[in-house]
This record gives sequence, C-alpha cells and structure tokens, in this order.
Amino acid sequence: MTATVHQLGDKRSPSLDPMIALTAADMNAVNAVILDRMQSKVALIPELAGHLIAGGGKRMRPMLTLASAALLDYPGTRHHKLAAAVEFIHTATLLHDDVVDGSGLRRGKRTANLIWGNPASVLVGDFLFSRAFELMVEDGSLKVLRILSHASAVIAEGEVDQLSAQRQVETSEEHYLHIINAKTAELFAAACRISPVVAEGGEEAEEALEAYGRSLGIAFQLVDDAIDYSSDEATMGKGQGDDFRDGKVTLPVILAHARGSSDDRAFWKAAMQGERISDDDLAYATQLINSTGALSDTLERARYYGRRAIDALAPFPAGRAKAALVEAVEFAVARAY
Amino acid sequence: MTATVHQLGDKRSPSLDPMIALTAADMNAVNAVILDRMQSKVALIPELAGHLIAGGGKRMRPMLTLASAALLDYPGTRHHKLAAAVEFIHTATLLHDDVVDGSGLRRGKRTANLIWGNPASVLVGDFLFSRAFELMVEDGSLKVLRILSHASAVIAEGEVDQLSAQRQVETSEEHYLHIINAKTAELFAAACRISPVVAEGGEEAEEALEAYGRSLGIAFQLVDDAIDYSSDEATMGKGQGDDFRDGKVTLPVILAHARGSSDDRAFWKAAMQGERISDDDLAYATQLINSTGALSDTLERARYYGRRAIDALAPFPAGRAKAALVEAVEFAVARAY
Repeated sequence: MTATVHQLGDKRSPSLDPMIALTAADMNAVNAVILDRMQSKVALIPELAGHLIAGGGKRMRPMLTLASAALLDYPGTRHHKLAAAVEFIHTATLLHDDVVDGSGLRRGKRTANLIWGNPASVLVGDFLFSRAFELMVEDGSLKVLRILSHASAVIAEGEVDQLSAQRQVETSEEHYLHIINAKTAELFAAACRISPVVAEGGEEAEEALEAYGRSLGIAFQLVDDAIDYSSDEATMGKGQGDDFRDGKVTLPVILAHARGSSDDRAFWKAAMQGERISDDDLAYATQLINSTGALSDTLERARYYGRRAIDALAPFPAGRAKAALVEAVEFAVARAY
Repeated sequence: MTATVHQLGDKRSPSLDPMIALTAADMNAVNAVILDRMQSKVALIPELAGHLIAGGGKRMRPMLTLASAALLDYPGTRHHKLAAAVEFIHTATLLHDDVVDGSGLRRGKRTANLIWGNPASVLVGDFLFSRAFELMVEDGSLKVLRILSHASAVIAEGEVDQLSAQRQVETSEEHYLHIINAKTAELFAAACRISPVVAEGGEEAEEALEAYGRSLGIAFQLVDDAIDYSSDEATMGKGQGDDFRDGKVTLPVILAHARGSSDDRAFWKAAMQGERISDDDLAYATQLINSTGALSDTLERARYYGRRAIDALAPFPAGRAKAALVEAVEFAVARAY
C-alpha cells in the first residue's frame, strides 16, 4: 500500500520522503527549538553542537516523534520541544560514542572529537543531555520524563555492555540483540511513545507505538551493522570496516564466526582482538561474511523486525501517517541493498 | 557560637563533624539508595561507580541537602532519593572531569579512567547522570527537576567555559568567578535549595538556602584552588600542582600574574602554555604565589564568600542544624591552613 506508481510505471524504492513530507512543517518548528536551545554564551558549545546537529543527520528520532503524533491527529505543539529533547539526547550519545570509539568520521564529515578534542565532546554532550531534560521539565509531563530518563539510563547501560563485549568473539546473538535493543532501539521506542502520551492516545496506543519504534530500531541497527561489511564510504558516511577495526562483535561477525571452520574462527578471534586490521583482512572478513550467509541472514533478521514494526501499527487506521511510518520501515531495511 | 570548649580549654578547629552527626541517620538511608541504584546487570557499572562512590568522598553535597532539610525540621524521607540524585550528578561530573583532565589520582586513589579507561568512565558517568534523573522523576517534583536539570546544564556550561579558558593566562578574576560559580557553586546551591522545596519551606527559605550553598561553593572552590599551591599530596588527595601542570588559570595564578613583574608574567604565560611543568617550576610558581600575596588574598576572598554564606542563614532560627551549617563554612575556609 505504500508504493506509488511513477510515470514510468515502475515501483519506486521505499524512501523516507513520505515521512519527511508528513512532518516537514513540524520539523521546522523542532529545528527552531534545537537552534534556540543549543545556544550558550560559551561559544564553543553552539560551535561544536552545531557541527553535528547541522551536519546532515536525518533527524530520524524526532521525525518519529512527529510522525507518531500525526498518526494520532495530535493538534498541539508540545511535541516540538519533546522532539528537540529526543534529538539532543541522541546528539549527546553520538558525541560520547565518537569519543569512546575514537572515531574520526561521521556522516562523511570529520567528527567533533577530531576537530575540538575529546574533552570538549564529552562536556558539550553533557550540556546537550542536561538541556534535553530542561526541555522536558518545561513541558511538564512526568510520564514523558519517566520514559526518557529511563531510556537514557538504558542507553548508557547498553553502551557499557557493548564496551564490555568488545573484542569478545564468543558474544551470543542473544547478548548482541540485548545490546542493540538498549543502545539503539530504546530511544526509537521512547521517541515514538512520548507522542501518544502528550496526545492522550491511551495505553494501547503508547504500547503499540513503543513496539513499533523498538522493532524499527533493532532493524535499523542490524542493517547498520550489515552495511559495515557491504557498502562503501560514500553511501555510508562512516568508514566501512570501522566496526571490524574496532573489534565490535556485531551479528554478521557472530554468525560468520559460528558458521566458520576452525581456521575461520581463529581469524575472527584474532581480528576482534585487533590483530587483523589491514584492508586485506577486511576484504577477507567481508568475503567470509558473504560466503557463510552471515550478511544475508543479518538482513533477513532485520526484515523480521521490520515486519514486526509494521504489524505493531495494526491498531491504527490507514492514512497518510501510517503509510509514512510503514514506508520508513521499508526504507530502513532496504538501505543495504 | 559554633566552637565548643574542650577539656583542655582550647578552641577546637572547625570541622564537618557537627554536620556529619546531624545527618548521620539520614545519610545511612541515602547511602542505601546510592548502593541500590548504582546496580546494573552490566557488571562494569557498579564496579566502576563503586570505586568512586565508595572511595572516601565526604558526600558534601548530599549532606548539604540533608542538613538543609534538618534546618527546616522536615519530617519526611523524600530528600533521601534526592540527595542520592545530587551525589550521582556529582559523581558523573567527577568521572567526566577526570577524563577531561586526564587525571590519574583523586582522593588519593587511582582514578577510574586510569583503571578502566576513558570510554568506561564517560559511559558510566552518563549512566549515573540518567539514574539521577530517574530518581528525581520517581520523587515527582517538577520544581526539583527544574532546579537540578538547570544546574546540570550550568555545570556543563561552566566546564566547557573552563576548558576554553584553559592556558589563557589573561583570564580575568570576574571570568574565573563566573566559571567556578557554574562548575562548583551551582550544584552546592541546588543541593541546598531542593530541601525547602520538598519541605515546603517557602520561597524565602529556598532563596536563603540557595544563597548559602552558592557562597559556600565558591568559598570551597577558592580554597581548593589555593590548596593546589600550598599543600602536600597526603592532605589533599589530589596531586599538588595538578592545576599548574594542566594550565588551569585559577585565582592564585590570576593574582600572581597581575601583580608580577614582566619576567613573572612571561613565566606564567609559559607555564600556563605547558612549557614549565617541572618540580622546580612548580616550586617557583608557589613562591611567586606566596610572595605576591596571591595565596593569602585567594583565601581572604574565600573567607568573604564564607561570611556571605553564614549571613544567608540569618532568616533561620538558631539550633543544632544552623550551627552545623555555619561550622561547615568555617571548615571549608579553614582547610588550607
């Protein structure tokens, strides 16, 4: 139901365009809040925050807040501040992630920590995180505050969990799913759930949108992890093979390791320990991930979560907002092809 | 009124003991909350957080929350969770500060970033910060949430401001005071103010206790900055000269630089740029800070803020709690002698 017929009669690829169009007016309001509230007399704060915030992100999470509100025909404006708070939390975690990973490239641009150093990235992240809570307090919903403070704690927990699992090639698929559920899907879920709270859509709507966001978030992260072994830097905006070189044990690695020969396993163990980081090693890893079916099965898992996300929208009536939310899922799982 | 007569008739030195005794029972409850809420299935979190939280800190800030509540004869228990939240915010900022400064020693122990690395310290700090907000949300006071989310943003802003001013020997006394007001005094002020909020002590009590906490916080930081040039590592728990070697332009430096000869100024400029970091350089710096009166005048400024803190308590009746709060100020300004 989400594909439209183009002039040439071909089925167009799924895209974010319907969701972007659906939320465009609201997103202008959100962007105004973001620009206003990242200001500070301390010049380094807007300078550094602006680099990342203006840096070509898709605003996926605040867009989900806005689209969820549209699904419920919410007529108010409270979600603008809250969507900005969600983006601030996300930006703060990106700043800290790049410090943690020592990343030099994000969305095809040099990272803030590379330009301004780790100390500035840590502290501006803290500032944005605090500012997010100030925005929520201004809105005044304790329920929203509960959802997003809990999500923030879960995200940090997931990041520490990921750090502990780093370079551990024996990480189980279940443990991996637990990590990405915490570090990625929790904020997607929260971004979607806060709209039925302010729209007073009821518990069923809250749970349905939370389930939608959570499954979408997992699908999104699975595809992201697959892309690290399948795409080139230009499409990706992060260096291909970053996860590989950082010893991040993602699902493609877990599956390829589990399915591999004892030689393959020895390769993966050494690679995750940081002893195989050349371009040739990455090429070999990519070949193993393809030949074992690890890549295609990671993407199949992503499609499974994508179907769950779409099914979670069952309680809501058909319409433009629902179609946009469905197509956002299709876009998320199609990115790697 | 705060000194008691000892058996030998000598005036004892001011100490935190009266405040510790005043708040001992409540502090047990706060410690139970802290221990309970720093837990996580991700083992690294309680391990790292416990290192710092159990690491011999004075719990100055939560103690101020408890003593402020005692001053108002608050009969409830809501302040226990909130005092724990204050300590979590403080602990998070310490973890991040040590990453920012690359510190290896705090309170005489190896820092978390030295033991577990910067990534873990950044992320566990984020976790504790989120947990602080969860505790506040459980309490449910939007006013408290407003005070502490604002304080957190101001603290981060102050830390970035300090980072920008680092190595800038021309930093003015006014700018320096602005920085320590944000990075230190804001949380002292908030820790004191939240108690009249939950005790429903009224706006006058809130403002008086905020003013007390703020002046105490400034006095506390001024003395801390003086100690870096006057004390030995054993008394201090941080390496003497850390600020000097980090190029932190604190008030002793600002005064010594302003009052110095052109040779002295050249020395300070080079030192703050990190070009004079030997023990001899530190000894020379300490000598300049003494001979120009910079040290004694920094401590005189601290006493001035100490007097303001004590005067801010004027609206409250005499009694055990007030005496303890007064002596805490006297202790804070007496530490360097």
